[in-house]
Amino acid sequence: MSSGSLAGDDGAALIGLDLGGTKIAAALVGEDGTVLARHTRPTPAGSGADAVLDALATAAAEVDPGRGAAALGIAAAGVIDPRTGRVTSATDSISGWAGTALAAGLAERTGLPVACDNDVRATAGPELAALDAEHGSLLFAAIGTGVGGAVAVDGRMLHGAAGIAGHIGHVPSLPAAGLPCTCGATGHLEVIASGPAITAHYQRLTGTAVDRLETVAGRAARGDADAVHAITTGAAAVGQALGGLANALGPDRVVVGGGVPRIGALYTDALAAAFAAELMPPLRGLVPRAPLFGHDAAVLGAAALTTSLPLHHPGALR
Amino acid sequence: MSSGSLAGDDGAALIGLDLGGTKIAAALVGEDGTVLARHTRPTPAGSGADAVLDALATAAAEVDPGRGAAALGIAAAGVIDPRTGRVTSATDSISGWAGTALAAGLAERTGLPVACDNDVRATAGPELAALDAEHGSLLFAAIGTGVGGAVAVDGRMLHGAAGIAGHIGHVPSLPAAGLPCTCGATGHLEVIASGPAITAHYQRLTGTAVDRLETVAGRAARGDADAVHAITTGAAAVGQALGGLANALGPDRVVVGGGVPRIGALYTDALAAAFAAELMPPLRGLVPRAPLFGHDAAVLGAAALTTSLPLHHPGALR
Repeated sequence: MSSGSLAGDDGAALIGLDLGGTKIAAALVGEDGTVLARHTRPTPAGSGADAVLDALATAAAEVDPGRGAAALGIAAAGVIDPRTGRVTSATDSISGWAGTALAAGLAERTGLPVACDNDVRATAGPELAALDAEHGSLLFAAIGTGVGGAVAVDGRMLHGAAGIAGHIGHVPSLPAAGLPCTCGATGHLEVIASGPAITAHYQRLTGTAVDRLETVAGRAARGDADAVHAITTGAAAVGQALGGLANALGPDRVVVGGGVPRIGALYTDALAAAFAAELMPPLRGLVPRAPLFGHDAAVLGAAALTTSLPLHHPGALR
Repeated sequence: MSSGSLAGDDGAALIGLDLGGTKIAAALVGEDGTVLARHTRPTPAGSGADAVLDALATAAAEVDPGRGAAALGIAAAGVIDPRTGRVTSATDSISGWAGTALAAGLAERTGLPVACDNDVRATAGPELAALDAEHGSLLFAAIGTGVGGAVAVDGRMLHGAAGIAGHIGHVPSLPAAGLPCTCGATGHLEVIASGPAITAHYQRLTGTAVDRLETVAGRAARGDADAVHAITTGAAAVGQALGGLANALGPDRVVVGGGVPRIGALYTDALAAAFAAELMPPLRGLVPRAPLFGHDAAVLGAAALTTSLPLHHPGALR
């Protein structure tokens, strides 16, 4: 394979990998964007970075046994720098993950050119592609076990210093004031608005231990005022933060994805109301939307990284 | 003059105009970036958009009586869309300003191709040019009678939908909770952190009317605890908001300009401490800086718009 040509030029298939804290998803994506093969396997999160890279390479081989793919794109948790191909920083959900030479390590193991990015940016890529490609601006939030995001302005996905752009979970949030954040600061959006944060908020309000967000959502549906409060506070915090970011960035489209919004109208109505209340006059009418793409978005977006980001080639290990 | 060539290609001088609510500043800028002529005149803010456009054209003629300039760039208050050349929205500091065909109106009056942008983005342009031109990211705040800003990521100044990107005065701020904002929302940074907002805060704390920020700063210097509180609250609010935006955008450099930081160390220390407290680990060490460029930054930045933004030509009035 020529290492100089842009991946996909010859119409060959691409591999997309999505690395999360518990699961690796892999897909072989045809030139028309269809998924030709799928594979999932557990992330060996406690076994160190080399074991994770080995598992990623195995997942790639599973979807492409004939080794016909032209390139591999990987969407990974943590702060990823597509230019260096490294994990800039990460929480300890994968042991020893921070600093990993992700792209080079995978290129060595697979023999393929590799592009890498943060999982949320990769997932947001197809949403941006669906907008005006030259000028479209997108604010994308993913509300799940954490609060992540991706920001594209004037047609380009933003990366920023150290690849950190899009970490919208770490903006100040009024209802989070004083609460310690995973990043070491206090009062950030993530600690009032993520799924675990809503559950923890309910526990603070009631003194009652609950196992997971679905339990809180179920109690809210049955009229538990504390459950309603914990959910709507998290939703409104997201809406308020996204409204402020919209004023600062001017998106044409605002997308809220992740598992938490699946709570339903109690959540999405509170989020939309808080968002609308923040907007400057030129943005009025902007409404947060659900993602256009379903559960394949991450692996499709990962495969598409190979056509928009720097490729790291085998043998170039730094 | 060829309307098809990029302005400045032939080394001719450029005109830069800076339109504020009280004053118009004009400069003729030579090909080496030196200011060859200067002129200022009052903004006829109460006389409507046509009078303001006439005054701008007069200011341009004053600095270029020989009509040798190749193009004109204008930096203006309000939300400006460089692509349409129009004022998207504006407060009523200039009557009838919202909706004005700024670029076309000036092109008609001067016979020159015109580029336009928001005044803060124009002022931040030289700061961005001083960074790594391909990849540099800049977060620029201007704290004065309002709170404005400009954001450049991955080497490009962001404009966003309707040219609104950079309006960082309209992100939620904890100490501003409940206070009405000029934009119609409540609780935004601008209403606790602008110069008039600090003065108003002092008045709320003391029940004492004061005429201007300098009075509050003077009392703070003499140990007035309420004056210190109003100033440090405004400073910390800016620092906290910029820290959150830094996490979301990943700037290489953060610049705080405008008149308010000239209060001195009481202000800048409180701002820097609040900023540092928000940062995610990959950004630690990032410190807010004073602008590199002095009082000519706006007109120099305005002139430079003609080489980076769409030019609106005479006769193309839409």
